[in-house]
Amino acid sequence: MASCNEDFLRLASGYLFPEVARRTRAWQERNPGKSVLRLGIGNTTEALAPSVVSAMKEKLDLLSSRDTYTGYGDEQGDLPLRKALQRHYGRLGISIALDEIFVSDGAKSDAANIQSIFSRSSRIAVQDPAYPVYVDSNVASGHAGDYDESIMGYRSIAYMPSDAANGFVPVPPEERADIVYLCFPNNPTGAVATKEQLKAFVDWALERRSVIVFDAAYSDYIRTPGIPRSIYEIDGAERCAIEISSFSKYAGFTGVRLGWSIVPMALESDNAPTGTFNRLWNRRQCTFFNGASNIAQAGGVAALSDEGRRECMELVGYYLGNADIIRNGLEGAGLACYGGVDSPYVWVRCPDGFSSWEYFDFLLDKASVVVTPGAGFGSRGEGYVRVSAYGHREDIERAVESIRRVYGC
Amino acid sequence: MASCNEDFLRLASGYLFPEVARRTRAWQERNPGKSVLRLGIGNTTEALAPSVVSAMKEKLDLLSSRDTYTGYGDEQGDLPLRKALQRHYGRLGISIALDEIFVSDGAKSDAANIQSIFSRSSRIAVQDPAYPVYVDSNVASGHAGDYDESIMGYRSIAYMPSDAANGFVPVPPEERADIVYLCFPNNPTGAVATKEQLKAFVDWALERRSVIVFDAAYSDYIRTPGIPRSIYEIDGAERCAIEISSFSKYAGFTGVRLGWSIVPMALESDNAPTGTFNRLWNRRQCTFFNGASNIAQAGGVAALSDEGRRECMELVGYYLGNADIIRNGLEGAGLACYGGVDSPYVWVRCPDGFSSWEYFDFLLDKASVVVTPGAGFGSRGEGYVRVSAYGHREDIERAVESIRRVYGC
Repeated sequence: MASCNEDFLRLASGYLFPEVARRTRAWQERNPGKSVLRLGIGNTTEALAPSVVSAMKEKLDLLSSRDTYTGYGDEQGDLPLRKALQRHYGRLGISIALDEIFVSDGAKSDAANIQSIFSRSSRIAVQDPAYPVYVDSNVASGHAGDYDESIMGYRSIAYMPSDAANGFVPVPPEERADIVYLCFPNNPTGAVATKEQLKAFVDWALERRSVIVFDAAYSDYIRTPGIPRSIYEIDGAERCAIEISSFSKYAGFTGVRLGWSIVPMALESDNAPTGTFNRLWNRRQCTFFNGASNIAQAGGVAALSDEGRRECMELVGYYLGNADIIRNGLEGAGLACYGGVDSPYVWVRCPDGFSSWEYFDFLLDKASVVVTPGAGFGSRGEGYVRVSAYGHREDIERAVESIRRVYGC
Repeated sequence: MASCNEDFLRLASGYLFPEVARRTRAWQERNPGKSVLRLGIGNTTEALAPSVVSAMKEKLDLLSSRDTYTGYGDEQGDLPLRKALQRHYGRLGISIALDEIFVSDGAKSDAANIQSIFSRSSRIAVQDPAYPVYVDSNVASGHAGDYDESIMGYRSIAYMPSDAANGFVPVPPEERADIVYLCFPNNPTGAVATKEQLKAFVDWALERRSVIVFDAAYSDYIRTPGIPRSIYEIDGAERCAIEISSFSKYAGFTGVRLGWSIVPMALESDNAPTGTFNRLWNRRQCTFFNGASNIAQAGGVAALSDEGRRECMELVGYYLGNADIIRNGLEGAGLACYGGVDSPYVWVRCPDGFSSWEYFDFLLDKASVVVTPGAGFGSRGEGYVRVSAYGHREDIERAVESIRRVYGC
């Protein structure tokens, strides 16, 4: 008799963004004719870069002729893309071998699947608040224990509080944690970590023989000098850290789908000698995955070329311009704002004692603006909302004006 | 301290195709200047259909303008593609609801991931031989137990022998099996199952409350009238079967990456009422996956249009023509051949007491032809090799001639 995976049933509630979409739809049904201003999901809105589109069209021309057609590529990714990524890290002074690079269909898949190479008895630690996929993938895989309403979290997970008091950058946990998820620039708080703050985690992981899963999906949004763009800028990180990254927010590939992970050969633990985790991830990818779309990969190569990089960084600059408008506009209205400097996300303290979902409903009702309730990212997200800089400039301006009007500006 | 997933370490050996590639490379190094004729991996070789390429270029044009650009789509797939798939099933007289369709990046991913929605205590059954992903994904997820050299298999898996005696179509297992993987047209044997043979499995599953995972990736290769193209042609299958399928072999999307699964609302078990498995798979996809590439999905819609279907079925016909050449050529050389009629795979009995890998080495050595050793698909694959019809016509002819020369034809 077939039975369900009991761990899936532990998942506390619907995934955050579907719930945001559901409430927004319900509001639209109640308010026909009114248009909604979206600062919710981190979904790119601007056109793909011209050189990226050209490269993908050229790839389609190659696939249109039997002489240049290719089928399955390597599960680890096409060599030209892995070489381009190697060069990309080289620009940061980081040396990565080709067999340490695993191209994927996006950072979300990798962030969710990476837990599968670790022991089922692993204890994980996450920032609180955090991107929900780290927690949900571990719940569904049996690493998280039961949900406990009183702590608004799962019993077996170590939560690292990230709040205004620590600038949204936690210190390493004192309790046991085998796998630690870190994301900088952070989703949802927009915080970045200094070299010293990351070094504390690397030193801690080396001492404890734990592994850091570092989500660098927003690294190209860093404009403050000296802030690390990769965990491998920290000495020793190649022995204790996996890095996950993406073309989604850099090149507008949210729909095109392309990402990558770095699993260093030097990564090790007491019962996993050098090369073990790399080999396990390779085996995982070869068994559960068949490579990213070759069209997307051709676009990825172009996005990392000098011309593509110029064009994509213009895209990034556009969204950072939006973030400036949000942050300045909302601060001017008296709201306490964090992030939004090296990040497309502005983390806004709910005023007047509003909870996250109450403020979500309030902004939707009074300003027709959709944001993301901070509580959806964890208990320490309660009392905040995430405002996303992804949108057309004119829509961002309209949404910010609409919120400012609520506050009499 | 981080530890590895112990279940990954149970995986008996390297994945079949990398091993084939390794031996081929080693042979090439020993035989510089000699060219190798590939009848190994089921990798498409002919150009994408013109209407499919046009649709993907049009999608790229839409993504090139901020007014028509789109980012994240639904994790379940874009609506136009799900509607096209609904129409596709409608052609077979099968009614599928849109929320029963889950678009993915390929059948391999779905075949590997589907086990995750079932209880960890599930006992799985597979055809022997079978596509390795069914077994390997279950081994890595802890459903398979230890590898036992004496049975050339995993202790907790129920193997359903598929051999010449039963026409490579097994009967349902007598022992307990909660999840049963079936693949018709079969990879690797090329066998197809009649309505009566599939009905036996559906009746068995309904009685035992087990679930069939039906891999229909090669369904468009069926030319014998009356052979079912979908498990849902069998009465009651919507209550006990999940179907997985793909654009890879139908539209040449091996590199483009696109597939889908059907998880019916009616699918149920004693402790999983109607809708439960559908909801779990939806949750799995929303948590671990972010949708297939929107460019590939645009191509998929075109491949299912009337024009696209005509073009893609021409592609299928081309490979089936190759299969005819292989089967006729090798039978003419005195080899016992199975499959290759409703399938791109010809399953060849190794002559002269050769084992699979011995015959692999023999054909590589004497005929410069790469095939796939049957033993790589399971213990009952021992003594066979799989010959793939994917290749340019002239290469297929050359390879078949080369084998025939070995046998003095």
